[in-house]
Amino acid sequence: MSNRVKVIAILVARPNKSEELRSLIDGMVALSRKEPGNLRYDLWRDPTDPDRFVLDELYADTDAVAAHRATPHFQNYAPPIQ
Amino acid sequence: MSNRVKVIAILVARPNKSEELRSLIDGMVALSRKEPGNLRYDLWRDPTDPDRFVLDELYADTDAVAAHRATPHFQNYAPPIQ
Repeated sequence: MSNRVKVIAILVARPNKSEELRSLIDGMVALSRKEPGNLRYDLWRDPTDPDRFVLDELYADTDAVAAHRATPHFQNYAPPIQ
Repeated sequence: MSNRVKVIAILVARPNKSEELRSLIDGMVALSRKEPGNLRYDLWRDPTDPDRFVLDELYADTDAVAAHRATPHFQNYAPPIQ
């Protein structure tokens, strides 16, 4: 297998918070795709459960993942989704 | 969102069966990628748990998913991974 790093994040909204979660994640898509080491940052929603989102992320290598997690947009995004 | 269908399959091998599972899934990759409606069929292995595999699949639409599941290679593959 390659050096690329696949990240699959499964996020489930708290009750009545799915649109809030959706907009939080939406804010990450464009910014993350601009990162030099990002190869994919796709948001999917579970058709059987609208509170359930899946982020399909792909990075060039582990450094690119670390760079992603050091960005201001990730730092702002991470706390509310814990 | 598009008509495309994303399938993320998380497979965990039974004890001492990870190489057997790996070769079962490997057999699916080339055949699945040849299907007309398949857009992606990538196999990933959890770097922290060698018994844990993730299949990242993408299909043109729900008909393509149904066609995938009707193929001989899927029919042969499905029972042993239940």
